Amino acid sequence: MAVALRKATYSYNCIVERKAFTVGIACENKMAEADYCGIASGRDLDKFALTGLTHVKSELVDAPYAEEFPVVLECRLLHTIEIGLHTQFIGEIIDVKGDPDVIGENGHLDIMKIKPLIFDTSKKGYHSVGPCLGKAFSIGKGLPHEQG
Amino acid sequence: MAVALRKATYSYNCIVERKAFTVGIACENKMAEADYCGIASGRDLDKFALTGLTHVKSELVDAPYAEEFPVVLECRLLHTIEIGLHTQFIGEIIDVKGDPDVIGENGHLDIMKIKPLIFDTSKKGYHSVGPCLGKAFSIGKGLPHEQG
Repeated sequence: MAVALRKATYSYNCIVERKAFTVGIACENKMAEADYCGIASGRDLDKFALTGLTHVKSELVDAPYAEEFPVVLECRLLHTIEIGLHTQFIGEIIDVKGDPDVIGENGHLDIMKIKPLIFDTSKKGYHSVGPCLGKAFSIGKGLPHEQG
Repeated sequence: MAVALRKATYSYNCIVERKAFTVGIACENKMAEADYCGIASGRDLDKFALTGLTHVKSELVDAPYAEEFPVVLECRLLHTIEIGLHTQFIGEIIDVKGDPDVIGENGHLDIMKIKPLIFDTSKKGYHSVGPCLGKAFSIGKGLPHEQG
């Protein structure tokens, strides 16, 4: 799991000091809360209190997460790479916690139940994920060129 | 721009030798072609010929791209990081080429015109991007907790 941050952010220092981070998947019904977390800095404000999100201390890594996000990845810092304005942190995923409501029939995470947000950097909008259009490693087999 | 590949892939060796790569954004009307590129190996087959995609040699970096993908990023290799089964390549984006058909009013790339595919690793499905649900750095300002 890789995340890239500017050195000026509060999160940057937290990751450097604790050698850990968590990633919560922002979803449609927590869009305003997730957006607020991108506006405010944890240096000045308690984002958990201000958004109403529940602060949980990870038992596996030295970082907190919000209980309300449907999927949470707990990561141990492996690599720190300077890439210009940002620093990229690569973490080993120690655990993936999924809310029972977003687990599908096969016991795996179900993207249509998670309803994750897609961030459009161009117009700065949050988009939904639409329906499945095709099966991977499958629909490509029907190409006319391949058959010929 | 970061991509992660296994050493066994043909693309891995190409990137190591040429210190460059391109990324074409797979879109809805090129779903089968994109999927085929994930099934076959360039070591054994000419993916361009078999999919009907047009081979273009980048003038900026030592790598080819397919003309039909609506957005192409041309990257110069900056960092190579071992992350277990995969190697992560981080590239500096030298240019972003967008088809005129996917440029919006403001001259920027328009995600609803690009119609990129979202890959669900859990069920191995390609999903569309749905409509914009909210503005980033904006809708979080209306939270009751923040107002209180």
